[in-house]
Amino acid sequence: MSGNTFSFALLNTDGRARRGEVTTPHGVVQTPAFMPVGTQGTVKAMRHRDLEEAGAQIILGNTYHLYLRPGDQLIARRGGLHRFIGWDHPIVTDSGGYQVFSLSDRRTITENGAQFRSHLDGSAHLLTPESAVDIQARLGSDIAMVLDECLAYPASRDEAAHSTDRSVRWARRCRDRLRELRGGQHGDVIVSSPGQAQFGIVQGGIYQDLRDLSAAATVAIGFEGYAIGGLSVGEPIDLMYSIVSDTARRLPEDHPRYLMGAGTPEDLVECVARGIDMFDCVLPTRNARNGQLFTSEGRLNIKNARFADDDGPLDPQCGCYTCRTHSRAYLRHLYMAGEMTAGALNTLHNLSFYLDTMGRIRDAISLRTFDRFRQEFLRSASRLSLDS
Amino acid sequence: MSGNTFSFALLNTDGRARRGEVTTPHGVVQTPAFMPVGTQGTVKAMRHRDLEEAGAQIILGNTYHLYLRPGDQLIARRGGLHRFIGWDHPIVTDSGGYQVFSLSDRRTITENGAQFRSHLDGSAHLLTPESAVDIQARLGSDIAMVLDECLAYPASRDEAAHSTDRSVRWARRCRDRLRELRGGQHGDVIVSSPGQAQFGIVQGGIYQDLRDLSAAATVAIGFEGYAIGGLSVGEPIDLMYSIVSDTARRLPEDHPRYLMGAGTPEDLVECVARGIDMFDCVLPTRNARNGQLFTSEGRLNIKNARFADDDGPLDPQCGCYTCRTHSRAYLRHLYMAGEMTAGALNTLHNLSFYLDTMGRIRDAISLRTFDRFRQEFLRSASRLSLDS
Repeated sequence: MSGNTFSFALLNTDGRARRGEVTTPHGVVQTPAFMPVGTQGTVKAMRHRDLEEAGAQIILGNTYHLYLRPGDQLIARRGGLHRFIGWDHPIVTDSGGYQVFSLSDRRTITENGAQFRSHLDGSAHLLTPESAVDIQARLGSDIAMVLDECLAYPASRDEAAHSTDRSVRWARRCRDRLRELRGGQHGDVIVSSPGQAQFGIVQGGIYQDLRDLSAAATVAIGFEGYAIGGLSVGEPIDLMYSIVSDTARRLPEDHPRYLMGAGTPEDLVECVARGIDMFDCVLPTRNARNGQLFTSEGRLNIKNARFADDDGPLDPQCGCYTCRTHSRAYLRHLYMAGEMTAGALNTLHNLSFYLDTMGRIRDAISLRTFDRFRQEFLRSASRLSLDS
Repeated sequence: MSGNTFSFALLNTDGRARRGEVTTPHGVVQTPAFMPVGTQGTVKAMRHRDLEEAGAQIILGNTYHLYLRPGDQLIARRGGLHRFIGWDHPIVTDSGGYQVFSLSDRRTITENGAQFRSHLDGSAHLLTPESAVDIQARLGSDIAMVLDECLAYPASRDEAAHSTDRSVRWARRCRDRLRELRGGQHGDVIVSSPGQAQFGIVQGGIYQDLRDLSAAATVAIGFEGYAIGGLSVGEPIDLMYSIVSDTARRLPEDHPRYLMGAGTPEDLVECVARGIDMFDCVLPTRNARNGQLFTSEGRLNIKNARFADDDGPLDPQCGCYTCRTHSRAYLRHLYMAGEMTAGALNTLHNLSFYLDTMGRIRDAISLRTFDRFRQEFLRSASRLSLDS
């Protein structure tokens, strides 16, 4: 890939599970990888060094939020998102589409793009495939995503077909725009990271034939990587796994595959088993702030009165700072008292659990013991919800 | 002091400034010392290791808050406050009086003590000199404070005289109760830290003759250390400095002197110059969460629009993680976006600034250059408020 330091190396496989390395302008990401969500240029309640300690190799930034505040132009003036936030590791940005589509009564979609009003001040904006590319160029993320149409669930086959076609047309416009930026045709757009890669997104709702068409058309355009979008939006879990499985088969082996917005720890293991390399999800961070914790013994809700006198660590198997230092009794107290420290300690644990899980997944694939790991992991996870 | 590992060593003096060491059951505190406020068993927005990194040697816990939630009985069952919160360094607790007196229409004061209703659930409670001692014994802090009556400002001389007399009577009851606890006379009270010290508190409002009487009576009772209370409550700054100066002269040289609830960085330097050894104040932590930052160049408000494009560190003279890692532009963004990370990064800086200042004060006293340090410090501090 000339003019582009992005590359993907498939190191080994175990069944359909893949162990690989994504190389970006800001470093290497070991896959399968989980990417913590840093919506506004920070992973909520975490300092960057906490993320490094938890094992994060890459984080996700949300284009919609950063575009509105502090603004992609300001970030470009500061030298791009990495320099602005002080994070010297890889970053992926989404296209902003998902948030804009979520604004429901504040947005209008046309073939040209999405007109919307800011949730902050009501100001009017237009997000097109081209502007989504330009904004992400200014942000200078290592991996940019194409603008796609986010289909509501449930949707009829007709709706899904029309939407999928539009997403393919938008993907083509995004790729054209990036090619022009790389060729220096838009001098007014500051390109903060010339080595930025761009991933296409396969849509198609729950209709596998549409997914197949979308995958073929997206691969035909040609991207550095391929994402599966529009899942984990309310469909039954088995249907999601089945679509992931069949869609991953349609994607080229020599490019990374990214399942957007998923999921639970079990989802990570199950979708790695179906050939996925990259994940992002707010679940570990958002749930942590709500007192919902993931442990090797299942989930627990730290609010539960049974923890008031519990001197044990959150997760006896976990080596994170929270588990090394504090008891469940203290963590419950912090949560009940409304202390910010609760959010920080809980988030550090949940992310450590997610990222440790990814490390164990990678080790198991390397050792070709992934299937045994998967069975044991799912048994532990289902053994108990300590409460809920 | 038999049965008590608490001690104070005066290492050297420079003018009236004192360099010393307070030895407690949980370690040594270098004085002059600043004690960050950890109201509910955590310094807001800080993890314990952040405090250690910033240089905190001792923190303060609030008895009123901990008594109500999670409860001193629960904390005693967990082995005391240190074990409960996972902080293995010294802790001082206040008596709970200050918070109860602040409840104004929710409390009634009699000679016996203070009846009050919880700000959490309206439940009725009675705080007496004896129960304040018992609660702190259960918490197991290294330094406990006597229950004193907190005089409103302004107060007439008569009001002040009556209140001061009562505080002395309460101090005597507190000391008697501690002696009984140490003698094992109240087997129903769990004593979490047998080596706990107890400090008396000098009151007297703004009337120096009352302060003198209070100091003499408090010293006559005999405590491991002496605090000056009831200042920094709205009186003119010069009056505060003058009362601190004259009251400190009445306190024994071989015991630590603690000015409660102060203050600004300038207050710390000015009161060290008048013979104070220990301080606590919410200013660095509370202000940090409100975007008010202390720097070697003066104070600044990170909200200010002028910082939006400022790539410089918060304080070029500061070596804390926040200043090493992030720009003013990013810190402003986090604050404006309402991110918890803003509170964490700002608090780490403000506490680092306060604790670094204490370290520089201690060095200056050791080198007998405190007067020059003081003049330079006050010049820098007054040079500018970058805004406000």
